Amino acid sequence: MKRLIKGGTLVDATGEYQQDLLIQGEHIAQRAAGIVVDDTVEVIDATGLYVMPGGIDVHTHFNIDVGIARSCDDFFSGTRAAACGGTTTIVDHMGFGPQGCSLHHQLATYHRYAEGQAAVDYGFHGVIQHIDDEILTEMAAMVSEEGISSFKLYLTYQYKLDDGDILRALSRLREVGALTTVHPENDAAIAWRRAELHRQGKTAPIYHALSRPLECEAEAIARTINLARLADNAPLYIVHLSHGLGLDYIRLAKRSGQKVWVETCPQYLLLDINHYLRADGLKYILSPPLRPHAELDKLWVGIADGSIDTVATDHCTFPYRLRQQMAQQDFSRCPNGLPGVENRMTLLFSHGVASGRISPSRFVELTSTRPAQLFGLWPQKGCLEPGADADLVLFEPQLQQTIQHQHLHDNADYSPYEGFSCQGWPVLTLCRGEIVAKQGHFTGRAGYGRFIHRRPFVEIKDKGE
Amino acid sequence: MKRLIKGGTLVDATGEYQQDLLIQGEHIAQRAAGIVVDDTVEVIDATGLYVMPGGIDVHTHFNIDVGIARSCDDFFSGTRAAACGGTTTIVDHMGFGPQGCSLHHQLATYHRYAEGQAAVDYGFHGVIQHIDDEILTEMAAMVSEEGISSFKLYLTYQYKLDDGDILRALSRLREVGALTTVHPENDAAIAWRRAELHRQGKTAPIYHALSRPLECEAEAIARTINLARLADNAPLYIVHLSHGLGLDYIRLAKRSGQKVWVETCPQYLLLDINHYLRADGLKYILSPPLRPHAELDKLWVGIADGSIDTVATDHCTFPYRLRQQMAQQDFSRCPNGLPGVENRMTLLFSHGVASGRISPSRFVELTSTRPAQLFGLWPQKGCLEPGADADLVLFEPQLQQTIQHQHLHDNADYSPYEGFSCQGWPVLTLCRGEIVAKQGHFTGRAGYGRFIHRRPFVEIKDKGE
Amino acid sequence: MKRLIKGGTLVDATGEYQQDLLIQGEHIAQRAAGIVVDDTVEVIDATGLYVMPGGIDVHTHFNIDVGIARSCDDFFSGTRAAACGGTTTIVDHMGFGPQGCSLHHQLATYHRYAEGQAAVDYGFHGVIQHIDDEILTEMAAMVSEEGISSFKLYLTYQYKLDDGDILRALSRLREVGALTTVHPENDAAIAWRRAELHRQGKTAPIYHALSRPLECEAEAIARTINLARLADNAPLYIVHLSHGLGLDYIRLAKRSGQKVWVETCPQYLLLDINHYLRADGLKYILSPPLRPHAELDKLWVGIADGSIDTVATDHCTFPYRLRQQMAQQDFSRCPNGLPGVENRMTLLFSHGVASGRISPSRFVELTSTRPAQLFGLWPQKGCLEPGADADLVLFEPQLQQTIQHQHLHDNADYSPYEGFSCQGWPVLTLCRGEIVAKQGHFTGRAGYGRFIHRRPFVEIKDKGE
Amino acid sequence: MKRLIKGGTLVDATGEYQQDLLIQGEHIAQRAAGIVVDDTVEVIDATGLYVMPGGIDVHTHFNIDVGIARSCDDFFSGTRAAACGGTTTIVDHMGFGPQGCSLHHQLATYHRYAEGQAAVDYGFHGVIQHIDDEILTEMAAMVSEEGISSFKLYLTYQYKLDDGDILRALSRLREVGALTTVHPENDAAIAWRRAELHRQGKTAPIYHALSRPLECEAEAIARTINLARLADNAPLYIVHLSHGLGLDYIRLAKRSGQKVWVETCPQYLLLDINHYLRADGLKYILSPPLRPHAELDKLWVGIADGSIDTVATDHCTFPYRLRQQMAQQDFSRCPNGLPGVENRMTLLFSHGVASGRISPSRFVELTSTRPAQLFGLWPQKGCLEPGADADLVLFEPQLQQTIQHQHLHDNADYSPYEGFSCQGWPVLTLCRGEIVAKQGHFTGRAGYGRFIHRRPFVEIKDKGE
Repeated sequence: MKRLIKGGTLVDATGEYQQDLLIQGEHIAQRAAGIVVDDTVEVIDATGLYVMPGGIDVHTHFNIDVGIARSCDDFFSGTRAAACGGTTTIVDHMGFGPQGCSLHHQLATYHRYAEGQAAVDYGFHGVIQHIDDEILTEMAAMVSEEGISSFKLYLTYQYKLDDGDILRALSRLREVGALTTVHPENDAAIAWRRAELHRQGKTAPIYHALSRPLECEAEAIARTINLARLADNAPLYIVHLSHGLGLDYIRLAKRSGQKVWVETCPQYLLLDINHYLRADGLKYILSPPLRPHAELDKLWVGIADGSIDTVATDHCTFPYRLRQQMAQQDFSRCPNGLPGVENRMTLLFSHGVASGRISPSRFVELTSTRPAQLFGLWPQKGCLEPGADADLVLFEPQLQQTIQHQHLHDNADYSPYEGFSCQGWPVLTLCRGEIVAKQGHFTGRAGYGRFIHRRPFVEIKDKGE
Repeated sequence: MKRLIKGGTLVDATGEYQQDLLIQGEHIAQRAAGIVVDDTVEVIDATGLYVMPGGIDVHTHFNIDVGIARSCDDFFSGTRAAACGGTTTIVDHMGFGPQGCSLHHQLATYHRYAEGQAAVDYGFHGVIQHIDDEILTEMAAMVSEEGISSFKLYLTYQYKLDDGDILRALSRLREVGALTTVHPENDAAIAWRRAELHRQGKTAPIYHALSRPLECEAEAIARTINLARLADNAPLYIVHLSHGLGLDYIRLAKRSGQKVWVETCPQYLLLDINHYLRADGLKYILSPPLRPHAELDKLWVGIADGSIDTVATDHCTFPYRLRQQMAQQDFSRCPNGLPGVENRMTLLFSHGVASGRISPSRFVELTSTRPAQLFGLWPQKGCLEPGADADLVLFEPQLQQTIQHQHLHDNADYSPYEGFSCQGWPVLTLCRGEIVAKQGHFTGRAGYGRFIHRRPFVEIKDKGE
Repeated sequence: MKRLIKGGTLVDATGEYQQDLLIQGEHIAQRAAGIVVDDTVEVIDATGLYVMPGGIDVHTHFNIDVGIARSCDDFFSGTRAAACGGTTTIVDHMGFGPQGCSLHHQLATYHRYAEGQAAVDYGFHGVIQHIDDEILTEMAAMVSEEGISSFKLYLTYQYKLDDGDILRALSRLREVGALTTVHPENDAAIAWRRAELHRQGKTAPIYHALSRPLECEAEAIARTINLARLADNAPLYIVHLSHGLGLDYIRLAKRSGQKVWVETCPQYLLLDINHYLRADGLKYILSPPLRPHAELDKLWVGIADGSIDTVATDHCTFPYRLRQQMAQQDFSRCPNGLPGVENRMTLLFSHGVASGRISPSRFVELTSTRPAQLFGLWPQKGCLEPGADADLVLFEPQLQQTIQHQHLHDNADYSPYEGFSCQGWPVLTLCRGEIVAKQGHFTGRAGYGRFIHRRPFVEIKDKGE
Repeated sequence: MKRLIKGGTLVDATGEYQQDLLIQGEHIAQRAAGIVVDDTVEVIDATGLYVMPGGIDVHTHFNIDVGIARSCDDFFSGTRAAACGGTTTIVDHMGFGPQGCSLHHQLATYHRYAEGQAAVDYGFHGVIQHIDDEILTEMAAMVSEEGISSFKLYLTYQYKLDDGDILRALSRLREVGALTTVHPENDAAIAWRRAELHRQGKTAPIYHALSRPLECEAEAIARTINLARLADNAPLYIVHLSHGLGLDYIRLAKRSGQKVWVETCPQYLLLDINHYLRADGLKYILSPPLRPHAELDKLWVGIADGSIDTVATDHCTFPYRLRQQMAQQDFSRCPNGLPGVENRMTLLFSHGVASGRISPSRFVELTSTRPAQLFGLWPQKGCLEPGADADLVLFEPQLQQTIQHQHLHDNADYSPYEGFSCQGWPVLTLCRGEIVAKQGHFTGRAGYGRFIHRRPFVEIKDKGE
């Protein structure tokens, strides 16, 4: 089957082009101005629309069991929401398995979760719970045989690694062609501050933020950057940056030529610490927490000046009613995480492109091309060249709508962005040539999404395609 | 007459205090917790309010003749609006006089403008149209006898100075105890770009911005900073900063210990270049022009991190209907300037303090204390210590209202902030002990305002009082 | 007894002055131009000389037992060398005591070491080997009763603290009025790299440096800075900075208003990593190690721009013959440390002042005034005001001499600066009014030096006196 | 004829390689490990030597008439010295011609100067004395027909351009494919300060430096950077950077993606302002002048971190005896300029590579590859790939020698580096396959050097070859 996207403005990480795009089967077949086709080809009129590579959200947590609760979004509801929001690939961070389990154990678990469920394409980031010789050995096969070319370390939570193990992990992952990602928060500092707050009976949601101020995160960022440099300059990817000091540390590292990249999320660009003072403050419990408003400005500067590489969501859904049941008396009993996979693209477009902070091309770079390049999906995904998967999102740049949870497709019972008015919305989403969402309605199906065997990590310096 | 401001939270540049404030006549008489007074004293209940030094707006242009038009706000309408907005002192930048006129000529003119008109206290910045021995000589008396301890140079417009004259001015003004302020835009660059745009027939409002991109301003900032350093480290004050590159230049100078300070205005923090694309784009013509949105973020970073010293308005009113008459066909015929003196305090409070970017104390520093210290008004104004003028503004921090021009007190026919919803409004303004505005209504009178003989420039390093 | 220092140029942290200085007994009695005295007063002709506050070296290790060896300089030989080099006060970092010992245990030990030995005044920094309730309790008395208002934590070596204990220490020390100093190197990273080098049989001196690259130190600096901020903004002092990345981290912290200060040492300013490639490379084993030459330039920039606060020596003497015996086969068996207390002043003067990088006044700030202010000695020491101790060094700024170990007064058998030609030498040193060194010869006596009961930490922002 | 450079370490901008290099005629024929040749090939044993692209000095002034004097080095003596110092190509900045002369006028003059004289290859930078339509038109032919793809503007001296003309020049030169280079010093500031110094009778050599402090240069750098950005982002090359503030401005521009590059010279890296206080201070008169020592450190940081792109000499020779005759009474009568073309390579190698600040590869980048890429010589020159000109320098990295003018080959009567001991010297120089210098002796001939028709400017982002 062939489809022609006609009359739109193609946008990729290199610029904007008045070109049409011909799709044949699952792939892009041609890209040119004024492509002429016969009647057998379905023509999609993209006049006035941006035609962009489908969004790639490299930070979701579907179906995750965090010990005290399980996320209520599974791979179907999560990817359905993704599709409706213009995202055609997600890379999910696997949750922890039983203590001492192998890397393959969790991989098998996650394949079971996703199989037959996913509505868009997907991959998994491996998770490192401990380091020993078996794990180090296993890493090679995970990359070369299983298509898992990135792993995550935690510096806090149950399976935090100590510095020696972080070094071993970084060094080995570099060796086997994987990118190390890290959740950077200083565990001891959080514990110390939380204990002090508990001692003082301070358990309201605002104390979630005050128990882990930005220095907890900045410390862990600087630590990991330096350990990565010590581990033979292992490539490093910092997830969910929430503030400016860590960004300054990252800038210093980048300027010295270090291989380090950083992701932020819409919640850190748009929501601030004052939300914890609201009556429904529990809705916003996540880690790192929301920050003082001045940090948001600093992140926007990083979005505009190129210091920040990607925008993902850290989508992780725990309903508000559950949060209330569990944590009404104590913030520390609240499961951590926010939903958001469906609104990433419109939020960043509206506040980034429509406001004039960034170009459409930079938007594509942040939401699709850089994620693809860093995580072994490029040039299959994240680009508009012939041969690439026909993963596309058509954006109507002037469309103004308000986010309401009742229209969203995840399993949450609220949206942290309720009432946000956004300019610029996805109106058509294609995943490998199939229309999976249209005008905010889901048109795909569970099981259409395919596991992507990701390539080993290679540094791609050129922005272009 | 005595008044007691009771039960409020005093805010000055050093912090917040649960104290009362006793006013006797025109001055603050006492500042302490729980002041007890007898029945003769009028008690103002400030429970739930911030009690702050009255706003000082060191950049207005009332009654100014810009050659092609005269501002429609005079010293009465302008200061009336100031009072209603919580501002108790303005320092007006005098406009140009006849070619070759003396400094005293314009001073006399402005004294005539203001006398019997001003509703709040006022001063004038001198204006340098040319440099010769007589002007250099005259400067001394302007400072010591006339209370004019700051002057402005222009790097563009009719009376721009060349580098040699700038050096002479800076050096001499330092010598006589004056602070040099500068309008930094590169005249030749603007002329070159404007000519090119005209050649191409590009005359819509957006080309106003494109005829003077931020590099025009950045260049002039770097130039003036370096000339000031060469002129024996003459103190320098940059007016109406509109973007980030110039701020970076200023940061470098400050870090090296140079005596340089910088002002920005609400329009550069809140309005962006896209406004020129609106049907009513002419409403936003001013110089420097509004900038791409990413610059706004950088200025907010400077507001929060202390790099920016003051927030003023550059209030200069030309009605929209006049703009349409003059410039419908060509942006370059539009008189430059925006009204705004009445909304400065609420805009910065709402977007600065209520949003969580800055503390109330930093708000006072930006809007009152630093202006007072830099321009020879301190400690008479800009502080809450006994002996200071009882210039006060009481702020209701939770009050949420929308800016509508119909409620404002200037002579404009529009507000650039129409429809802005702000949290935190001035509810009572006292100038030297008298209530000049209440709940947004003017309660003062023309002629109450007094000319302030400003002290020579002295560097005041301590934030505190 | 009275002495008059006549005809010299007084230099303190505020500037240079053509003034005389009258000493009465142990104190400065008067400071003025052209002081006239009668015959009973001994007049010291300081024509052509700088008269400066005596040097304060806040980082020495006399008599220290590092487990595998004991430093061969005791409090007599060490302070004798200090006196000859123009230093009139040292603050020694106490070494570790038996596991689990109290803070007072080491204090008693060090009082025994110093009593009757010291030739100049001295104090001690406490050392934290472990944290428990008793130690936390003991801290208060150490400050208030014993005059120990600074303590040191180690992030490597036998008694390194983990992050939780660092937080407890920082928080408590802030509370009791003490300044926390820290030796910042990441223990796990060093262990990991050293193991790898050993596995490869790499044991030459150069591998000492390669086992602990600058990122080991940078990481620990960022960690401690952020932990200090988290511990209620506890004041923090980083010892022996050796490179630029850590300095950039410190700059970021200083700019955000954090209370953090940093020391470097002559060896990091003047010696580089290539020294480990010399046949006598073992002479230069210390930690942090000498760095690539580009780091030296960055430190000099910090010396000149004010980012670096103090210059101390970390004087710790292990003879070359001992190093050879112990570590000929393996760098890791070499005791760490360099001698240098006698050459700090001339080295910094020659390469700092004579070369034109810094002013004489900044030299005083780095070597005497800031150390005094940070460590509770000011204004008793580090200044030239009447009432201060008459601790003075007279510098002959044009005198050119070469450093030769045979002329030095420590117990080392080499100098790392052998053959360095320096311009500017101390020619007279007075400690509390007594001449303790003259023209490089020791004229003092063991036991003259007095233990200084240091004041609690207070932030002194003004440079001046 | 064939030559084989055997057994050496090839160094280019990408790294170091144990390879041999086969030369056939004027070009490099092969580059590989262990090249085997027959007896007809001359084998040069490069064991223990670095084999590098011949130096390219893109800033010389041979034979220049500066109005008050003519440089005593012509194209023969100048290029002879270059050859002996390891430099195989020079690009000379043409001097001013008669007022109002065409661009071709000076080109013809310089072709006459160089023809039959040059011992190594050469090109010319055009010089802009004024801007009018004829000059703007002429620029195109200069680039496309004459091989002059770079031009210089002056912001001081007789033919300084004003901002409008700078914009016209930048814009047009960008259009025709030329790189604009600029001598950045603020003319008015220098005039103002010089007049003041003269008024005070201050005419000693030190006042040369004080008449044009670094802010004169920093201002002009910021100005030109911003004008270049305004002129449609015209490419810009800053010559002879002498200090750190301008470098910071350049860093800001580079980080924002601007096309700006910067050159420094050995004199700014190694000599400081104190030289003007020496009895022979006149030897060091040049513009910009030598700076306070702290600036040298900042430049070295820029050399090491990549902010500085090239190192050239600004070789311009006026004998000391002439300087004495002309300027004994007044620094302002001294012709400006220093000799140095022969020592650039050894000075940068010794203080850069041997000291450990930079790698041999970075040395090649600074002295040869980047100059070639920026000035249209690459890949004909500045690289070691087959097909490139066989321009080579063989460096003996351990050789330690002292610079003495008596051994140099220019026509000066002194060297500013007299007595400098350097480690690392060129021992063989080949220009297009011919040996033009050996062990510091000239073996070439006048007229061997060929004019190089340089290519239009193209931005080359990759370091590599």
